[in-house]
Amino acid sequence: MSSAACIFCKIVKGDIPSFKLFESEKVLAFLDIQPLSRGHALVIPKFHGVKLTDIPDEDLTEILPVAKRIAIASGAENFNILQNNGRIAHQFVDHVHFHMIPKPNETEGLGVQWPMQETDMEKLKALHAEIKSKM
Amino acid sequence: MSSAACIFCKIVKGDIPSFKLFESEKVLAFLDIQPLSRGHALVIPKFHGVKLTDIPDEDLTEILPVAKRIAIASGAENFNILQNNGRIAHQFVDHVHFHMIPKPNETEGLGVQWPMQETDMEKLKALHAEIKSKM
Ligand SMILES: [Zn+2]
Ligand SMILES: [Zn+2]
Repeated sequence: MSSAACIFCKIVKGDIPSFKLFESEKVLAFLDIQPLSRGHALVIPKFHGVKLTDIPDEDLTEILPVAKRIAIASGAENFNILQNNGRIAHQFVDHVHFHMIPKPNETEGLGVQWPMQETDMEKLKALHAEIKSKM
Repeated sequence: MSSAACIFCKIVKGDIPSFKLFESEKVLAFLDIQPLSRGHALVIPKFHGVKLTDIPDEDLTEILPVAKRIAIASGAENFNILQNNGRIAHQFVDHVHFHMIPKPNETEGLGVQWPMQETDMEKLKALHAEIKSKM
């Protein structure tokens, strides 16, 4: 399950070199070469899929344990785990990837903007019923 | 493994109500009541730990499959998965939680700032050796 045009599939196959940190049957991890901070790494399923919703469960289970292991090895005290789905959500490579981005100070690492909405219990109640009915 | 003062441990125990979307032995998911967008949900390990690095692997494996399931049920086409570690990295509840935040348009949902650094192959090479030696 790989895509010929996909840069991350090429890294998985070894056709493009990478600073590999971890590899198993289902998961690959390597340094981001355009980092937001020192230690910025990517953890990907080898299975090619554009969005999280395209990846089988069994290709997802090992991702967070690997991200955790890299976070520990990097020595980062503060960090963000981020996975973007869709251009508007800041995804620029169309193969699911999880960023582990150390946050050493205000200027380096991920910048987060948090446009919080009002709590509306009636709307949440209706939404809850709607989503639950689809689970 | 719970903390008496922790709001998410209270939600796990049922001492504080929540708009529950999913529950298993190790994982709980519920709507965020101060959402960034419609469908904003949280997936947490029941195991109390402040940062990702505090959570045993077996309490992490089910998190992403559940986040995926909620993303599908919410109908979000574009979305971000985010987990923050440390105040400076925008963590405000000290119990590990994964956000599933739909990104319906530019103004709603997560705002991402990406202060990319120069690619420095020599630095990356040294960093790679350093992190690998600690894995
Ligand atoms: Zn691919
Ligand atoms: Zn807790």
